[in-house]
Amino acid sequence: MPEATMPTGGLVAVAVTPMLPGGEVDRESLIALMDFYVACGSTGVALLGVMGEANRMTDRSAEDLVVLALEALDGRIPAIVGVSDDSLARVADLSHFAAKAGAAGVLLQPLRGLAGDHNVTGYFREAQGAIGGGIPICVQDFPKANGVHISLDAWRMILDTCSSVQMLKAESEPGLEKLSAIRSAEESGLRRVTILTGNNGIHLMQELDRGADGAMTGFAFPDVLARVMRLFSEGDTDGAADLFDKYLPVNRHELRMGISVRKEILRRRGPMKHSVVRYPAPHLSDRSMDELSLLLDRLERRTGTPISAIVST
Amino acid sequence: MPEATMPTGGLVAVAVTPMLPGGEVDRESLIALMDFYVACGSTGVALLGVMGEANRMTDRSAEDLVVLALEALDGRIPAIVGVSDDSLARVADLSHFAAKAGAAGVLLQPLRGLAGDHNVTGYFREAQGAIGGGIPICVQDFPKANGVHISLDAWRMILDTCSSVQMLKAESEPGLEKLSAIRSAEESGLRRVTILTGNNGIHLMQELDRGADGAMTGFAFPDVLARVMRLFSEGDTDGAADLFDKYLPVNRHELRMGISVRKEILRRRGPMKHSVVRYPAPHLSDRSMDELSLLLDRLERRTGTPISAIVST
Amino acid sequence: MPEATMPTGGLVAVAVTPMLPGGEVDRESLIALMDFYVACGSTGVALLGVMGEANRMTDRSAEDLVVLALEALDGRIPAIVGVSDDSLARVADLSHFAAKAGAAGVLLQPLRGLAGDHNVTGYFREAQGAIGGGIPICVQDFPKANGVHISLDAWRMILDTCSSVQMLKAESEPGLEKLSAIRSAEESGLRRVTILTGNNGIHLMQELDRGADGAMTGFAFPDVLARVMRLFSEGDTDGAADLFDKYLPVNRHELRMGISVRKEILRRRGPMKHSVVRYPAPHLSDRSMDELSLLLDRLERRTGTPISAIVST
Amino acid sequence: MPEATMPTGGLVAVAVTPMLPGGEVDRESLIALMDFYVACGSTGVALLGVMGEANRMTDRSAEDLVVLALEALDGRIPAIVGVSDDSLARVADLSHFAAKAGAAGVLLQPLRGLAGDHNVTGYFREAQGAIGGGIPICVQDFPKANGVHISLDAWRMILDTCSSVQMLKAESEPGLEKLSAIRSAEESGLRRVTILTGNNGIHLMQELDRGADGAMTGFAFPDVLARVMRLFSEGDTDGAADLFDKYLPVNRHELRMGISVRKEILRRRGPMKHSVVRYPAPHLSDRSMDELSLLLDRLERRTGTPISAIVST
Repeated sequence: MPEATMPTGGLVAVAVTPMLPGGEVDRESLIALMDFYVACGSTGVALLGVMGEANRMTDRSAEDLVVLALEALDGRIPAIVGVSDDSLARVADLSHFAAKAGAAGVLLQPLRGLAGDHNVTGYFREAQGAIGGGIPICVQDFPKANGVHISLDAWRMILDTCSSVQMLKAESEPGLEKLSAIRSAEESGLRRVTILTGNNGIHLMQELDRGADGAMTGFAFPDVLARVMRLFSEGDTDGAADLFDKYLPVNRHELRMGISVRKEILRRRGPMKHSVVRYPAPHLSDRSMDELSLLLDRLERRTGTPISAIVST
Repeated sequence: MPEATMPTGGLVAVAVTPMLPGGEVDRESLIALMDFYVACGSTGVALLGVMGEANRMTDRSAEDLVVLALEALDGRIPAIVGVSDDSLARVADLSHFAAKAGAAGVLLQPLRGLAGDHNVTGYFREAQGAIGGGIPICVQDFPKANGVHISLDAWRMILDTCSSVQMLKAESEPGLEKLSAIRSAEESGLRRVTILTGNNGIHLMQELDRGADGAMTGFAFPDVLARVMRLFSEGDTDGAADLFDKYLPVNRHELRMGISVRKEILRRRGPMKHSVVRYPAPHLSDRSMDELSLLLDRLERRTGTPISAIVST
Repeated sequence: MPEATMPTGGLVAVAVTPMLPGGEVDRESLIALMDFYVACGSTGVALLGVMGEANRMTDRSAEDLVVLALEALDGRIPAIVGVSDDSLARVADLSHFAAKAGAAGVLLQPLRGLAGDHNVTGYFREAQGAIGGGIPICVQDFPKANGVHISLDAWRMILDTCSSVQMLKAESEPGLEKLSAIRSAEESGLRRVTILTGNNGIHLMQELDRGADGAMTGFAFPDVLARVMRLFSEGDTDGAADLFDKYLPVNRHELRMGISVRKEILRRRGPMKHSVVRYPAPHLSDRSMDELSLLLDRLERRTGTPISAIVST
Repeated sequence: MPEATMPTGGLVAVAVTPMLPGGEVDRESLIALMDFYVACGSTGVALLGVMGEANRMTDRSAEDLVVLALEALDGRIPAIVGVSDDSLARVADLSHFAAKAGAAGVLLQPLRGLAGDHNVTGYFREAQGAIGGGIPICVQDFPKANGVHISLDAWRMILDTCSSVQMLKAESEPGLEKLSAIRSAEESGLRRVTILTGNNGIHLMQELDRGADGAMTGFAFPDVLARVMRLFSEGDTDGAADLFDKYLPVNRHELRMGISVRKEILRRRGPMKHSVVRYPAPHLSDRSMDELSLLLDRLERRTGTPISAIVST
């Protein structure tokens, strides 16, 4: 049973994995990045998510990264470790390792190719059995990555049979009605767990309105998303929307272009020395770099804030 | 409500669509082909199935084919018409047309992309609503073609809410345990419907043993499959297996190579003048033709029966 | 050879198909909608696209819609007709019908499941052969819908062997580098054709900057996209971006939620009486309706323009 | 550069991974299994293939298995190690480990999701760069597992740019024409590499006839496939086909049912103590066990050989 506790809302930053020009993990930047996420007002950090290029690691390098990041965080905010893999043995081993190293819980997608409510549910039962009871699981509902549909019925069965499941990362699309349906079912007795949304927070305003507790995502401006949520929770929905909308063009661009652009923005904001990515993520062309500069210059003009400054939550 | 009644077992031949060298439907061969299927001891014919190149038609040509085939069959054995399409309007129109023309029922795959028991079930409710109550529906469970998984739970809900569903074409793989599970559920009260299997009948012996009522498939030797079932039903499982196994090398080859080889075998057996296929089915190379000759020559030597002869049921 | 000529830029509006509460095509609204698209400054209309619910039609109803829309347009702007289908016979028939009825050309996706440059290219050769030489083809590069990747090499081969291909609807994601690569290849001799982008125009600013000639998309504010392009072409990129960004929150929401929300916005803007959709598009819940109202109210406050007003190009 | 040399034909046995009831690797059975594969006349062994449940391992357990198997083989026949993974870092590390441990080469599928000849080719270039020049690579063309199509053009580019690629495991379906096309291209100068086919050897006769050098597959009767090839190479095609056909019903059944049945047959044949599989492979029901017994009893009657006996090559 981990000592750290799972976040229950706010912005959980999905951490990128900083790399050196040669491709190794950039340990110095990783430490700086953890400080950055904390300074941005994140309520937690998710390591080894899809956008952490988790599936470009070895078991050993994944473990090293967990240790390093947890040391850097030093308990300031909790960490959740992505453990999704075709191999349940690997899921179990990395979960145990992460829990021992101090993670609050793990993030787990269903196995690619599963279909039918019974089979989808069965996976999380198998996984819980392999991981062991004490480690909290956040279920990642992200069909774009794995092709698996978690229906409302499947979600109900998962909650009924997997006590370790304590969080949902909801990023199916269009998922707003599913979000409302889950919240509504909770009023009729479904076990309530924290729901965080993803997809760069690109639909955050609607998701908060539908009852999401927060977001777990890697948008390179976690401070902005954190502040949007703060304003929303204080009832200033207009202020929240105004701030959100200013960053929307950059958010949308990052969401489309993927990890390469995200890392480059983080590099420009400060905490990372390089924006190196691993295959098959593409290196940014000069054209793409200029395009990004245009967007970020425009952002600075509209906000009056340099991108290197952290927006206070 | 159609006058013809749905078959309840035996071999329902999935008809190919004979074509002239220019690509038009070969009406003369179509008539001869219907005679052939009847002579083979088929208990029914399925028109416009996947292997009838149904999705290479226009609405008009599909209707013409239904009329022509039903006239040729002249009530000797019932016909089921494939109506699967992305468009429920087309599903409904063709179903009505087929029923009026004398078909016994329709064959329907779930809409591509459906996931989750609730959604899969919902499709058949929508389809039944669009088609109307009186026309029997055979649900085609064929994930290879549409990516949809019909779970046991979904099947149960379909039977509970769609009274028109009166048959299952079971061709998921590996599907033997699902077949047993359905038969077992029927003993506990699940509505019993006819189950016919597919995939060229390549697993027929095991499927019969698991409780299949028959097969609906297009293997170019429907007479052989019909006779195998006759022997099996008479308790001569060894005789059934002996006969089945003799044709297995050709069956497996046809299953792999697809419609082009199937049509060529039917051409060589007699009822069709040409083995023309529509794009994207490939035309057989000389190499493929020779390869097929080798297999068929060997078959004739092993069985002592020319392929042009119909094996009496 | 059609008399109308294909648009070479600007905003080609992908038309929705207005329906009556019973599900039939709403002919009156369809006429009003064509007037609306013209008034919005569209340089063309695309009928029977994905978002025209083309794959929820019958051949007959598709033809009826083409005739009605072309009559309503009365030559004011050209129409392109979506003909994508698994059946080349249907592709050919509808293309011929559309051309005779006065369409400027057709819009065609590659056949689902094609893989490898040779096979992808081959499809368009086959299709051109089936359609016949005189009818201009716009290739729709939209992997999200059909899973087919059109590589730069495949595109080169298509242009080399299919003289009918005169336009590209570029909506692969992330596709900006591909767009640049094509424009760059044109400078080295690749045949130049009009490139229009899609995806609701959500990336329009970057796409114009990369050399797109315009957009072919169905965003419910075609007038805004048309004006954005006008401003951009006049060199006022800041003005273009300012206008674009104001509509971005609604654009992004519509893109996520799909045809149901698009139709509802069009209904509220005026040209359509109902926002009825066909299965499997969902009917909007009360929650979804309120959510949309929030977004549109906010839009009106930010722009100072009622959504019912057409933004002059 | 490995000391062992890659096989150039014959039957390379894709090894299963024997497990104890608790799920750990059964080291004793693994050793016995290697002896079995050697006794069966295999020209090599492939470790950690799809059917070795490679994607149910950890990096550590994969390495342990490689060491153990290579020790057991003790140089009697060469081993090829499956290294396919989403992570090139893992591909590289396991390749280096395997080469050092004495493997002759590695087996590598393209990364899931790749499309377009250029991208498919690019993967193998990246992989060769990561693995390093000296280790021979066998490209596994198996779209069923990864969705990637390796076209003839892509194959040509791979051979032109990746000198480490020295073998093709050809198991696309229907792939016979592709096999002929490659062999034909070799006559016009394409670099010739060994081609081994897969899919349980279910199409072996046709594949040999088309020019395959052998098979790399895991059918539980590798001795039979080895003998079939021996007879074929000696010109006794009828004898080869007779033997092949006798095992075809069992082969087809194993191919459909998958790893669970394969392991159970191997258990019954002798070299393995248990037929334990890892999730998501299903445990065999009593029904499935009886069904298999029927098939194997029938096989023994037809061949006059107990399944425990190894058919001499």
